[in-house]
Amino acid sequence: MNAEKIPDIIIGRLPIYLRALQRMADKGMKTTSSQELGDHVGISAAQIRKDISQFGEFGKQGTGYSITYLIDKLREILKVDRVWDVALVGAGDIGHALARYQGFINRGYNIVMIFDNDKAKVGEKIGEFVVEDTEAMVERIRSAGVKIAMLTVPASSAQEVAEKLVQAGVRGILNYAPISLNVPNNVKVQHIDPATHLQRMTYYL
Amino acid sequence: MNAEKIPDIIIGRLPIYLRALQRMADKGMKTTSSQELGDHVGISAAQIRKDISQFGEFGKQGTGYSITYLIDKLREILKVDRVWDVALVGAGDIGHALARYQGFINRGYNIVMIFDNDKAKVGEKIGEFVVEDTEAMVERIRSAGVKIAMLTVPASSAQEVAEKLVQAGVRGILNYAPISLNVPNNVKVQHIDPATHLQRMTYYL
Repeated sequence: MNAEKIPDIIIGRLPIYLRALQRMADKGMKTTSSQELGDHVGISAAQIRKDISQFGEFGKQGTGYSITYLIDKLREILKVDRVWDVALVGAGDIGHALARYQGFINRGYNIVMIFDNDKAKVGEKIGEFVVEDTEAMVERIRSAGVKIAMLTVPASSAQEVAEKLVQAGVRGILNYAPISLNVPNNVKVQHIDPATHLQRMTYYL
Repeated sequence: MNAEKIPDIIIGRLPIYLRALQRMADKGMKTTSSQELGDHVGISAAQIRKDISQFGEFGKQGTGYSITYLIDKLREILKVDRVWDVALVGAGDIGHALARYQGFINRGYNIVMIFDNDKAKVGEKIGEFVVEDTEAMVERIRSAGVKIAMLTVPASSAQEVAEKLVQAGVRGILNYAPISLNVPNNVKVQHIDPATHLQRMTYYL
């Protein structure tokens, strides 16, 4: 397995496969085929076989894939065979929703701290968390060794906060602010901006 | 311009360009280059020129792009030179956050109705909206001619609700439920699932 050579677009499909496989496992299914998995995720069987074969031979001709085995392998490849601590920055509506979302822990992520620069929000309890002051953020993240952050601040302050996160040692940012971030090459950014997704659909209408 | 032949991956980048151009316009900028735009969005100048040239000649050698002209063209291409009515299904945390989000209207979308199947939520006010019963959804959406929906219901009911939305005439679904949806080919689905985005990043850590 040579991680450097695998296109990011393939990496982007693996979490979709993993999610579908976990649902199959939850339903008590033991084995699946690339055809069946493909029907669930809307991707061709040939593409799925090709994607998965990048990482080794995980299926058997005729009998298909063992679901738990393939889940284990995908979790290992995506490095979610552990749980990553996550810092959440921005305690607005989306921040609240993310802090209360129960779906992260089973998929490898655990929000452990929440920050906001609004003094009115600092000290507020969100679920089990107390919102902390952004002023303390760099030191808190660095000393805790947190590598992943979710950014739910307004567009106007997103770049500045992202730079502080990088300075604190963060290497992956899930950015909810509707703006592209400029970060060093060794920092990964993924964007969640519903309007861009909507625009990608209305093109076809 | 032959819409059928343009790869979806290019269509997916246009909203990113549009977003960056709108920020430039907000700052009072009049013209830009593919190089400058590329620096903002983290995409190469050559790629941007190639993407935009699929739709015509919008820039001038030497002087670059007029920002307002390119914005107008991209809005026309993405069909957001109008405002689309949107139905929101699911009045949970994410539903609340989306209902209150102020960033849709300027980008072509306007939430006009909110549904939930929880009788305790029906009648609740969220901002200017009153949550309606999902039982009335198909008829309400159909008679209003709404073509776009945001789906923020649990994974267990997402497929069933999606089928009702399709039945009601919806042709684009922004799906926040962590599950792939099976819909007819003439219905577009975009997925927002933060865990899949996180997993795509941790692969590289």
